[in-house]
Amino acid sequence: MSKDVLYLKIAKSVTEQIKSETLQFGDKLPSLRSAQKLYNVSLNTVKQAYMELESHSLVESRPKYGYFVSQTSQRKLALPSIAKMKVSETKNSPEDLIDKVFGTIAGKDMTQFALGIPGESFLPLPKLKKSMINVIKSKNDSGTDYEPVQGNEHLRREIAKWAMVLEGKITENDLVITSGAMNAVYNCLMAVTKPGDWVAVESPVYFGVLQAVQLLGLKAVEIPTHPIDGVDLDELKKVLPKLSACCFVTNFNNPLGFQMPDESKKELVRLITEYNVPLIEDDIYGNVYFGAERPKPCKFYDEAGLVMWIGSVTKVLAPGYRVGWVAPGKFKDKIIRQKLVQTVCSPSLYSDVIADFLEHGRYDHHLRMFRKKLYANYLQIQKSVAAYFPDNTKVSEPKGGFMLWLELDKRICTEDLYDEAFSQKINFAPGRMFSQYNQYQNCLRLNYALEWTDRVESDLEKLGKMIKNRF
Amino acid sequence: MSKDVLYLKIAKSVTEQIKSETLQFGDKLPSLRSAQKLYNVSLNTVKQAYMELESHSLVESRPKYGYFVSQTSQRKLALPSIAKMKVSETKNSPEDLIDKVFGTIAGKDMTQFALGIPGESFLPLPKLKKSMINVIKSKNDSGTDYEPVQGNEHLRREIAKWAMVLEGKITENDLVITSGAMNAVYNCLMAVTKPGDWVAVESPVYFGVLQAVQLLGLKAVEIPTHPIDGVDLDELKKVLPKLSACCFVTNFNNPLGFQMPDESKKELVRLITEYNVPLIEDDIYGNVYFGAERPKPCKFYDEAGLVMWIGSVTKVLAPGYRVGWVAPGKFKDKIIRQKLVQTVCSPSLYSDVIADFLEHGRYDHHLRMFRKKLYANYLQIQKSVAAYFPDNTKVSEPKGGFMLWLELDKRICTEDLYDEAFSQKINFAPGRMFSQYNQYQNCLRLNYALEWTDRVESDLEKLGKMIKNRF
Repeated sequence: MSKDVLYLKIAKSVTEQIKSETLQFGDKLPSLRSAQKLYNVSLNTVKQAYMELESHSLVESRPKYGYFVSQTSQRKLALPSIAKMKVSETKNSPEDLIDKVFGTIAGKDMTQFALGIPGESFLPLPKLKKSMINVIKSKNDSGTDYEPVQGNEHLRREIAKWAMVLEGKITENDLVITSGAMNAVYNCLMAVTKPGDWVAVESPVYFGVLQAVQLLGLKAVEIPTHPIDGVDLDELKKVLPKLSACCFVTNFNNPLGFQMPDESKKELVRLITEYNVPLIEDDIYGNVYFGAERPKPCKFYDEAGLVMWIGSVTKVLAPGYRVGWVAPGKFKDKIIRQKLVQTVCSPSLYSDVIADFLEHGRYDHHLRMFRKKLYANYLQIQKSVAAYFPDNTKVSEPKGGFMLWLELDKRICTEDLYDEAFSQKINFAPGRMFSQYNQYQNCLRLNYALEWTDRVESDLEKLGKMIKNRF
Repeated sequence: MSKDVLYLKIAKSVTEQIKSETLQFGDKLPSLRSAQKLYNVSLNTVKQAYMELESHSLVESRPKYGYFVSQTSQRKLALPSIAKMKVSETKNSPEDLIDKVFGTIAGKDMTQFALGIPGESFLPLPKLKKSMINVIKSKNDSGTDYEPVQGNEHLRREIAKWAMVLEGKITENDLVITSGAMNAVYNCLMAVTKPGDWVAVESPVYFGVLQAVQLLGLKAVEIPTHPIDGVDLDELKKVLPKLSACCFVTNFNNPLGFQMPDESKKELVRLITEYNVPLIEDDIYGNVYFGAERPKPCKFYDEAGLVMWIGSVTKVLAPGYRVGWVAPGKFKDKIIRQKLVQTVCSPSLYSDVIADFLEHGRYDHHLRMFRKKLYANYLQIQKSVAAYFPDNTKVSEPKGGFMLWLELDKRICTEDLYDEAFSQKINFAPGRMFSQYNQYQNCLRLNYALEWTDRVESDLEKLGKMIKNRF
């Protein structure tokens, strides 16, 4: 029997065990070495078999922990549906709703499913404090000097070194430090558009992007977006000639959680290059993967300097620091000029602290803990939603990040549900926030990067009951 | 003899002494008590006499030090001339020159007359460091929490308390924290204009304002500006109906150094109110006065909520902290919305440190030292320019701040002079940077907030020689 057939045979055998629920969601497959003995084959053959299973999304690998049966393999709830392209429909931005939800975020006694940032128990607070004190003690100027407009050199060097996923395609000279990722998105949009221009975004889309588009006097076209594959490239192609920019979150999208497949990323870069349309790639969740490795950003495939690759520490390390960055390709000089005019430079201390964290491996160490904890929460919330929410609930299948997107029965209005949940000290982000049209009213986004307590569990149960009671 | 006539008699007697150069520039008048005995009058009469002299700019009072003969009383050099209004002339922004000058600012072995910020010896570095460490130690979240979008509440409260010059007209609720004053100017412009709109600025004008105007797609009209009184209100009135905003530095203007008289401020506010044109008032130098007291900003006279009053700690305490603020009157909500979209919030640590400085009187203490040192430098640079520069040099007469504006012989091009001075490790800001038209080529701006050493003195002598050698 050839090796090829051997690995397929093993894969088939495991597939059968999953179908029959002998192996269930979350179960660990035998380790590579155990399986080698079990099937009496080479280590490589086992690896091939497991990779085959992974390519069909039946199992998921978690670095250093092994392979686990994935949720996809046995999902009971359907995926959210895909919205149609709406260009002519009247826009109606959900500013009042956003203000309302943001206005309640400060409440410390809330179960915070609405937040777009991780809870404090996910952050290395004592280490950050220590690093800050060390940095301050070492600064002769007490932080009063201006930084270079482009940003702290030490930080830019460490980000470039740390961006191994780009395989050396960027250096410190390619990076500009920004005041968080939103500041980078805002400045990238400003650099490549003029008022009245069209920009493509996903649908549902992170509301901050819509707000930036509006502030700059631009128009957004919401491209139909698949919950597993991301933006529909055929639909995008139809509007591409009239676009001034695309603005996408390609890895562990907010709110859908998808990871755009590599082939789609390549095709996207090919398309924008053909039409000479800059792509603003917000890759702030890229390091929060549940799979084997950090996925490539589109920037990796960019030869023309059209991809503006954005990162930040907001989502994994220190939201309040407002440290982000962008590798803006050929638009670098414009971005630097804009930053000079808008703020002169970034404050130095936070840059130094983050550079210190990156340089001494503390960021890497923290991320490993962060992903592990987050993946456990992800399994928890999937189970809880399946257990407590109605059977017709549709749910996303994030491959990383910390957002779950739910589509409820058509009769449910999550804006109303929000008020009821709020009175029970439960918070979430209503779906209406994620579009400029009157849609996603029966959807909601849940943040699961919070300390998983009994209260969280019982609050999800409460939320499920509130929904069931509505029909 | 009535009291009225008495004080005038004393004033006249001192005036005579000044005219005859018995009392010279920088000389101290007798203290109030000495003068009381000398003239055998009441303390109040002496005070009235000295205030009369001050109102004619013959003497200047310095709090706690007494009254001094002013430079105006015996100036040997003329005031800079006033540019005409140019609306039709082709614009030609000096971006390359600005880039060149900014590019050399990092050189530590330069005599930095070009900088727009004070040298390190003017800043309380150890106290800032101590305050930062205290703040960090006290922060349970290690600074990772988001601040309120409007800005740190403690800082806003302290700024409101500290803004005594406004006599209680603003509270913490009226303020928004920004990333330095330029960020406030940028956001104020954005809040009250749309692309293509006209904005009035001074002439010469701080180049950062022109850059912000350009970035936002606006058009600037440079209003003729008097080196002692500020913007010519008659000229402003002619264009006011077509303006969307005015953007002025009313106290210790950069680069001219004037302090707009109270009557002019009142009239300015009356005019903008009549025409409903918002005034962006950049008051970042307001606390750096050489006179008896902190001058009022236009904001003080504003009843309609049209004045957007801007401050920061950049010019006196900590340039690199990027802590500024604005009291945007009726445009507050718009400014907060813009800030949310552009950067989510400000980083917390710097806000806490500045709040701490304000609350515990350290800012006040520092400013007293700062003003004293700066006034000494001002007297020095005026003397040096009079001694070393050609007699046809025209020079501004700042009433505060740390910028001196010079107008040289028509044949001198300060862009060329810049290159020669640079080769001698001397830096300054060529006049061409301060207009969008081809003018002020024979002007330059000198920053005198630097440690006054023998080298600084000899560098001014060198600069004077370079100028003399050019004709």
